[in-house]
Amino acid sequence: MAEMKLFGVWASPFSRRIEMALKLKGVEYEFIEEDMKNKSPLLLEYNPIHKKIPVLVHSGKPIAESLVILEYIDETWEGPAIFPKDPYERAQARFLAKFLDETFFPPMWKACCSRGEERQKAKEEAIELLGFLDNEIKGKKFFGGDSIGLVDIVGNLVAYWCGILGEIVGIEFVPKDKYPNFFKWINEYNNCSFVKENLPQKDKLIAFLKARFEVLDSSK
Amino acid sequence: MAEMKLFGVWASPFSRRIEMALKLKGVEYEFIEEDMKNKSPLLLEYNPIHKKIPVLVHSGKPIAESLVILEYIDETWEGPAIFPKDPYERAQARFLAKFLDETFFPPMWKACCSRGEERQKAKEEAIELLGFLDNEIKGKKFFGGDSIGLVDIVGNLVAYWCGILGEIVGIEFVPKDKYPNFFKWINEYNNCSFVKENLPQKDKLIAFLKARFEVLDSSK
Repeated sequence: MAEMKLFGVWASPFSRRIEMALKLKGVEYEFIEEDMKNKSPLLLEYNPIHKKIPVLVHSGKPIAESLVILEYIDETWEGPAIFPKDPYERAQARFLAKFLDETFFPPMWKACCSRGEERQKAKEEAIELLGFLDNEIKGKKFFGGDSIGLVDIVGNLVAYWCGILGEIVGIEFVPKDKYPNFFKWINEYNNCSFVKENLPQKDKLIAFLKARFEVLDSSK
Repeated sequence: MAEMKLFGVWASPFSRRIEMALKLKGVEYEFIEEDMKNKSPLLLEYNPIHKKIPVLVHSGKPIAESLVILEYIDETWEGPAIFPKDPYERAQARFLAKFLDETFFPPMWKACCSRGEERQKAKEEAIELLGFLDNEIKGKKFFGGDSIGLVDIVGNLVAYWCGILGEIVGIEFVPKDKYPNFFKWINEYNNCSFVKENLPQKDKLIAFLKARFEVLDSSK
């Protein structure tokens, strides 16, 4: 069997989405927990540009960037498809995944890490952007259809992390009244047994994130 | 024949890369020039989130984001492959394309649009990042091997636009002595007849970009 290693952080949605994809495909791997305050020489060697997790190492060959890794996993292993088969649907899924990471994530994270007017502005921007997803999920169980696919896997960020971050910092990122379809998807998703098995334990994650925000606060 | 429309801007590298890919595949299309100061209702309808070009509309179905469109084109039409066949090489190409757009482009553009210390810092960052590409292209004619592929198409940004922007603002983004391999690729690329046919005319592009920088200067 090919040697498979995943350099990640247990509390990171970007790292967890790779684990979810590998488990969906039934691929065995060794998880190597990185300390991002003291990065390992191997992580720096494997991802010299971004110096970030996740990095998947397949028989010694590293792949960085979670969306790139997800494409690689889907193309390399049989099993349930992560990306839709139809090219147009694939394009739509890629667009949404990119949207979550590049358009939604920055203001969402800023809303969590900033204060006052800056927080208010970032919060409004992040919430407004989710209107697009509310419309996209309307009438569907998962973004992938009847089973989870790329956007659902990448959407762990909103479905789980946003809820917990919101609890900590006092922001309701997905108001039920404003986004009923998206709210329904979040419930469906977080109650799906396969998803649940691949999410970090809530109390542990809250403690981890709270400690991180305390560090941010004290360094301001 | 399916109706194919490309909403773009003649002077944009992001728009030109889609034209290059369509021509490589021999796909006929209608090019619709957008005025980004007065966007058309169709562009806003087709790309409501980003309101940006390029947007490819295939039989009425829109696809936005240039990297997503390139994947769609390669998956939909026969002809010369844009993406490598091997999944690991595909992952590397996707990583590099993402790197050019998301990591290199922001400081490069900032170096062009800012002044003083801010420009100096952005310039150093952008130039430093290109060291990675100099290493990647070593010993190869094109990033795609003997013929142009994804990274070459996306690389129009550095190969052509960076040179012209550099002339206008007085920045040498690719110093020959520092990056001999990458410099060699730029020459090879810009002299390739297929590439040349798909680049805007130099004088016209210089005039367009100069006018844009004058607007930026006057609005400061």
